[in-house]
Amino acid sequence: MSPPSAYIGVDLGGTKILARAVDPQTGAASGRAKTPTPTTGPGDVLDAVVATVSSLDAFDDAVAIGIGVPGFVVGASTVVRCANIAGWETPIDVGQRLRAALDRPVVVGNDVNCGALAEHRLGAGRGVDELLAVFVGTGVGGGLVMHGSVVEGARGMVGEIGHVTVEPGGRQCGCGGRGHLEAYAGRAGIERRARELAGEGRRTQLVDLAGTGTMKSRHLARALDEGDDVAEELLAEAVAALARVIGNAATILDLRRVVLGGGVVDKLGQSFVDRIAESEAFGGLGSDLCELRLAERLDDAGVAGAAILAADRTG
Amino acid sequence: MSPPSAYIGVDLGGTKILARAVDPQTGAASGRAKTPTPTTGPGDVLDAVVATVSSLDAFDDAVAIGIGVPGFVVGASTVVRCANIAGWETPIDVGQRLRAALDRPVVVGNDVNCGALAEHRLGAGRGVDELLAVFVGTGVGGGLVMHGSVVEGARGMVGEIGHVTVEPGGRQCGCGGRGHLEAYAGRAGIERRARELAGEGRRTQLVDLAGTGTMKSRHLARALDEGDDVAEELLAEAVAALARVIGNAATILDLRRVVLGGGVVDKLGQSFVDRIAESEAFGGLGSDLCELRLAERLDDAGVAGAAILAADRTG
Repeated sequence: MSPPSAYIGVDLGGTKILARAVDPQTGAASGRAKTPTPTTGPGDVLDAVVATVSSLDAFDDAVAIGIGVPGFVVGASTVVRCANIAGWETPIDVGQRLRAALDRPVVVGNDVNCGALAEHRLGAGRGVDELLAVFVGTGVGGGLVMHGSVVEGARGMVGEIGHVTVEPGGRQCGCGGRGHLEAYAGRAGIERRARELAGEGRRTQLVDLAGTGTMKSRHLARALDEGDDVAEELLAEAVAALARVIGNAATILDLRRVVLGGGVVDKLGQSFVDRIAESEAFGGLGSDLCELRLAERLDDAGVAGAAILAADRTG
Repeated sequence: MSPPSAYIGVDLGGTKILARAVDPQTGAASGRAKTPTPTTGPGDVLDAVVATVSSLDAFDDAVAIGIGVPGFVVGASTVVRCANIAGWETPIDVGQRLRAALDRPVVVGNDVNCGALAEHRLGAGRGVDELLAVFVGTGVGGGLVMHGSVVEGARGMVGEIGHVTVEPGGRQCGCGGRGHLEAYAGRAGIERRARELAGEGRRTQLVDLAGTGTMKSRHLARALDEGDDVAEELLAEAVAALARVIGNAATILDLRRVVLGGGVVDKLGQSFVDRIAESEAFGGLGSDLCELRLAERLDDAGVAGAAILAADRTG
């Protein structure tokens, strides 16, 4: 038997599609359907979402379906583009397509915003009406909750904190800009800079550990543990950049709490969050204004957030 | 005869109290009652507001009263403190006090937020759902509209853009912090720096024109017209600081438009706004993201915004 108000949350990722039945009040999830994301274009991807969702036992009784996508969502449910999904280069009204196929209300949101919403309702963001959640992984993303609801903006880009300028004319960002937060705090930016420094003759565990492969968050954690100078230098820059941008955002938005998650934060843990909170680089009116917390919902936060979004918008 | 849905807007300032009847749909104002702000404490100030509002012909038919105050508003209508009003040092529930005396619904908002709301509905912010209005005067303040409504935040501080850090460890701000936008772009910050430079032996029209009095926005405008080097240098710093902070805010908030107003902007005009818009210092995803416009509502924007706020919250 399904719970009385079952919602289905879907996390549409670049490599896999995950769907679960979720009680949006408690986050309790049941069932689990998972399939690799097709690489043959968005039509096949959406068909795979339909098949994955329909395969859940809870589907028959589901009130509505929420889906988090790795792209910008505009209007009710149009996804402008998904950089990580092959062939998704023009806007598609995902809500309309899925509603027709699933015969249920379908709500579409950005995946990072769904993660922020899950933290707000079920995780480290409980108890405040305004929350910024910052996810530091390969890049740096963010989601913003105001008055208890996710804010998306006219172009679905609210929370794009990774592309805030911290150092005018500074390091090249993956987006082509210069001096953006992501270039200092994202894993890819840190890797780029570590390899540059190695190229200039500095010896670092970061490159020794990663070799020619991807430099992972765990390599960063290990090099720091071993007192590697370059790793420590890059971490200090990441901490200062995050402190500056988070402090400034808290000042403009009167935030009492900011939650930090994502791969880099998961690996470096509470001490990384504490270091940011205690940084002298904290921007704006400073760390008195807002408290930083480690994200709590490490498992299936995207799925839970998508289900919560569905409940918020159809309830 | 009053218009069918008459609201009264009140602008409670440090030197005067102004009340008018306003049609919130069109901004058309009628009647005008004005009184100096008492300096004998908040009790007398609120009594003066009651007397001013009651003296308007439109009072008998007014649906509700909106009041903009120069302080932070929390909860429904509590004003935490008003720096410019003598003796206002503890929180006062202004809404409750005025409702009892005026026997009408009373809505209380921050004055800068009321100005932003007036720009959004009636001025240069028409046509967008999200708007940041930045007011550059003695200091730098701002108000934020999201989804068509003013956002105030848990402590009433949303939009406090003047205290965003632009230059870590940089110029002293009036608030005690360092490197805040206000220290570079606000009139008082510019004056402080101009006098410092004069003290170091640099000759500038700014000090020649102001003498020992307040250096006014018109002195800045005139010194710039005359090609004064110090004035040009300080203006360039103000432009870069505004461009950086506005661009970063637009990036986090997905803003398509930002409106600029306030005494300094009024005096320097469209060319100042253009210079910010074209600045290479534009932060974040850059000026492609958002358009800058000169504020339109130079007269009684505070009163109009207060009336609109009253209509929004009681309608």
